[in-house]
Amino acid sequence: MDNLDVNALFLGPKSENHDFFKRLLDFLMDEHIHWRRNFHPDDAPFVTLPKKRTEFFMQSQDRTEEVLLELSSRLKAKSMPWFSPRYLGHMNSDLLIPAVLGSMATILYNPNNCAFEGSPATTDLELEVGRQLAAMIGYSANSAWGHITSGGTVANIEALWSARNAKSLPLAAREVAPDLVTDWSNHMLRHASMTAILDLVSALREAGKLHDALQRSIRAKGITQLGPTRVFVPQTRHYCWEKAMDILGMGSDALVHIPVRSDFRMDVNALAAQLEECLHRDIPVLAVVAVVGTTEEGAIDEIHHIAALKKAYEAKGLGFFLHIDAAYGGYGRTFFLDKNNTFMTHEAVCAMNETEMDIRLYDEWPDNEVHRAYEAMPEADAVTIDSHKMGYVPYAAGAIVHKDKRILDCVGYHAPYTASGDEDNQLGNFILEGSKAGAAAAAVWAAHKAVPLNVSGHGRIVARSLEAAATFYHNLSTMPPVHAMDGHTYIATALTRPDFNIVAFAFNREGNANLDTMNAINRRVYDRCSYVAGPIYKTDFITSKTSLDHHEYGDSTLPFLERLGIGGKEWQRVGTVFVLRACIMTPFLAEGTTYTAYWQRFLSIMASILGE
Amino acid sequence: MDNLDVNALFLGPKSENHDFFKRLLDFLMDEHIHWRRNFHPDDAPFVTLPKKRTEFFMQSQDRTEEVLLELSSRLKAKSMPWFSPRYLGHMNSDLLIPAVLGSMATILYNPNNCAFEGSPATTDLELEVGRQLAAMIGYSANSAWGHITSGGTVANIEALWSARNAKSLPLAAREVAPDLVTDWSNHMLRHASMTAILDLVSALREAGKLHDALQRSIRAKGITQLGPTRVFVPQTRHYCWEKAMDILGMGSDALVHIPVRSDFRMDVNALAAQLEECLHRDIPVLAVVAVVGTTEEGAIDEIHHIAALKKAYEAKGLGFFLHIDAAYGGYGRTFFLDKNNTFMTHEAVCAMNETEMDIRLYDEWPDNEVHRAYEAMPEADAVTIDSHKMGYVPYAAGAIVHKDKRILDCVGYHAPYTASGDEDNQLGNFILEGSKAGAAAAAVWAAHKAVPLNVSGHGRIVARSLEAAATFYHNLSTMPPVHAMDGHTYIATALTRPDFNIVAFAFNREGNANLDTMNAINRRVYDRCSYVAGPIYKTDFITSKTSLDHHEYGDSTLPFLERLGIGGKEWQRVGTVFVLRACIMTPFLAEGTTYTAYWQRFLSIMASILGE
Repeated sequence: MDNLDVNALFLGPKSENHDFFKRLLDFLMDEHIHWRRNFHPDDAPFVTLPKKRTEFFMQSQDRTEEVLLELSSRLKAKSMPWFSPRYLGHMNSDLLIPAVLGSMATILYNPNNCAFEGSPATTDLELEVGRQLAAMIGYSANSAWGHITSGGTVANIEALWSARNAKSLPLAAREVAPDLVTDWSNHMLRHASMTAILDLVSALREAGKLHDALQRSIRAKGITQLGPTRVFVPQTRHYCWEKAMDILGMGSDALVHIPVRSDFRMDVNALAAQLEECLHRDIPVLAVVAVVGTTEEGAIDEIHHIAALKKAYEAKGLGFFLHIDAAYGGYGRTFFLDKNNTFMTHEAVCAMNETEMDIRLYDEWPDNEVHRAYEAMPEADAVTIDSHKMGYVPYAAGAIVHKDKRILDCVGYHAPYTASGDEDNQLGNFILEGSKAGAAAAAVWAAHKAVPLNVSGHGRIVARSLEAAATFYHNLSTMPPVHAMDGHTYIATALTRPDFNIVAFAFNREGNANLDTMNAINRRVYDRCSYVAGPIYKTDFITSKTSLDHHEYGDSTLPFLERLGIGGKEWQRVGTVFVLRACIMTPFLAEGTTYTAYWQRFLSIMASILGE
Repeated sequence: MDNLDVNALFLGPKSENHDFFKRLLDFLMDEHIHWRRNFHPDDAPFVTLPKKRTEFFMQSQDRTEEVLLELSSRLKAKSMPWFSPRYLGHMNSDLLIPAVLGSMATILYNPNNCAFEGSPATTDLELEVGRQLAAMIGYSANSAWGHITSGGTVANIEALWSARNAKSLPLAAREVAPDLVTDWSNHMLRHASMTAILDLVSALREAGKLHDALQRSIRAKGITQLGPTRVFVPQTRHYCWEKAMDILGMGSDALVHIPVRSDFRMDVNALAAQLEECLHRDIPVLAVVAVVGTTEEGAIDEIHHIAALKKAYEAKGLGFFLHIDAAYGGYGRTFFLDKNNTFMTHEAVCAMNETEMDIRLYDEWPDNEVHRAYEAMPEADAVTIDSHKMGYVPYAAGAIVHKDKRILDCVGYHAPYTASGDEDNQLGNFILEGSKAGAAAAAVWAAHKAVPLNVSGHGRIVARSLEAAATFYHNLSTMPPVHAMDGHTYIATALTRPDFNIVAFAFNREGNANLDTMNAINRRVYDRCSYVAGPIYKTDFITSKTSLDHHEYGDSTLPFLERLGIGGKEWQRVGTVFVLRACIMTPFLAEGTTYTAYWQRFLSIMASILGE
């Protein structure tokens, strides 16, 4: 796979690969049709030809056809053109052909990965996807375990559910198997490290006491048992973390936001101060959540520093579950793995960028901290990764990977690695969801199989996206003022140098120091460059937006605002800044000529909109 | 749609409708291809023809093709032949063509129904599906609200989450807006009816105090606030209810199982006794869950009696949330709705069976209690319905419908009916999941649009399935002993007269009074009629199985066991009975000639297996 050509893997902005796509779809469809016909070939057909010529039969198919044509019209009228490089908005792009066709083909067989009996073919694929993602993260394939969820939100809830239930187990063990925790202090029963807890799970299982302990844990007794705890997240976390705290019964008040710096990475010193306080005040820390690829900025928290804190505080007697929400940025790790899946040095990555990958990443991007953050990912206890984001796979396909599969004992009825016979591979027994589409598993599996999760495969797609984002950021940062039709000149700047492929940016009229005015300008750009403008199909450029609020972001936005001529007092007065947000996932902006034409067109569209 | 022909709506056991299916798929695919090409037609193609002829390009597509062929081979080798009437196992069958093609077509556009901006086409379809399902249940379209979940488990968790959060609101209101609850006693604050709570939500909203109240409720403060509560479920509930209690932090110990009678419906008197106890002991009842279509038996709880209890206990001052888990049986209600969506009388249903529907349902099936249960469904506060079960739609598509959308205020950040502008239709803000497939919404929408949710449409598919199940049950109940190859004779009987289309049954050797022996006989049948036998493709008949345990089912199984010659002492001694379980969803066993041939084949297969 040294010679993977990314252009061959997508249908393409102009459906360039339509012939390949349609030929395979047709073949896969025929495979299914004849699979049915070959099942007990001697069984008589149920629908005979004369039946098919009756009026009622034809009317029923006419109606189906009309409905599907209406659906197609609605889809064409209102869908977002993710496939086009003119779309730089949400976390969407064209999709990998193996994933789309894998999904379409599997829908015909309609497997249900809840229970093995409903999906002998695709349960195996889902477990294989779990192993592939574990390898991508750097986990040991023997001890890790992952599966597909309907999305990152469910994966995050599942992670916190596991952490919560595990946390309650030592106290439960003291009740049912006190001999196993004789040397655990009262403090340790509430603050044990994940390793200690999971070793206790093993000991309980061995002693035949696991079931009893679970029946004394949160799972059966409810959350009242645990007492107040803390979960730490960066201010930049996705809003699903509040939802997770609510659903899991812990309450969103127990979710503590750690401030971010002006690069929008979690302030690790602030986290350390919070941990220190918990240690002194004897408050158990349920989990620390770090983000790899924040939703608004694509920022990558410094996992290596956070993992170091985890070790340091475990040594001090304060253990916690470290979760990485890499829903967006998880697949970025393929960029750092060589073809043998070894994590490369920063030098090797930079050298590769110049030679082998044939991409242009300004300023030796990614920087050293991003490189170290990705390197440290296997230090976490679990990671959320959305295949339907940077995996270029259709919705709905998120995933969670646990570093140590023993944690499944805290949430499951039957753990997969110990169960035998009938209970083997019954995913529904130890995940949040029940029935689940085998088609999602097949789609992700086919993508991973066709495009390996390292620099020989998926890393090349990531590289395309990184190059486009780096170039876009570079151009924004160095562009001369835009002379708009209204006679004014406008300046632009990016929110920050991106850690990944999201570029948030804003315009301001030169000389304007009023933040309300600046917000109105960018709101107008957004209104013209989004579904707000009406049928998106006629739109020239499509982006998304976000608002950053003072009470959430504090002064982390100040350097950005100052570049646009907005001062700190104005920021405090208005309290919110409206920015445009481009997730640059497209693989179709990477080549020099394409990009140059694209950028010129972007500038002229902006000049037109700004000057209206 | 009076003249709907069910035969026209499925691909068919012999792919009889392959020409129609493939023609439409091809057209929908072309629609998408040209939609891409027509988006800014003057943009240059990115992948040019010379690029497509390069070696690396071709190698990359070769690899994709190889992977997809491997996937197809795996699917064909190991998938379950749901499409065939030889498959009478889990809740699976052939799928509606509009749903399959609707899903396949929509995947190409890949909408994400989490946020409206990601799915201007399919968010509308999802909300329309919510209204369609609300109408099917008998809810008022103005006040009800429904959406698609990844499955019944998520829908059930969501229902209980809503009920839990709502329950905590009166106490929170007392803190932030005491004037709104001045006439509420302490008792009422903890036991208020859902109507009272939702009126309070409206009052809080009007007074501008809703946010404050939510910040004092479980959502922010965690579950410790609520104190011990009870949730009642029938013994026959799906295991996801334990999971839901665990996840929501209430603990599975608070889930109380109500015994079932020998017809496997919840013992309503036992429920009443529990409610009475809660009233006397001042224990809040969070929810009562009734099941329409139990997983193992297809039993339909007597919703009318349970709804009457709800009213009676509300009058006594004990309010609770009534939820119906109709994941399986929900679509059965289409059988009772005339073409104007009016719920028909029992007489009208029976008369229609004989004349208009041309189906044979023995003993005036469904019985009066089933009819009344379906009639009373709109008395519940929420209903779970899985489109991917009796909706004949591919995975993953469950749904929840709330009777009164004001409850969304208890779980959401922005409720859809009050939000304006940007926040409109942002589903992710008030459901458990985040990113979610628009393709699932499109599939369900297309199915509902092509096949209306009443007796002129979907009811006819339900009728086919009911006829096949009734006939199977009738034949099992009246069949002479099977003379097997081993010289013994075997008798068979159904677990109970089915309320819906699931027939659980078992064989015994004539004269055998040993339950272990009987269990071994049925286990052998299962092993030969399931994936246990190896590649399912060669199997003659495929079914599923379940085990009923004495500690769960008590003596409800005794009439069944006695018909097979097993006594009560033996039942107590062994404590578990292994039964075969046929969910008869297939629309392809309804016609007399097909069924007769089928039954003869079934008998000869059984004679062969039993006599081995």
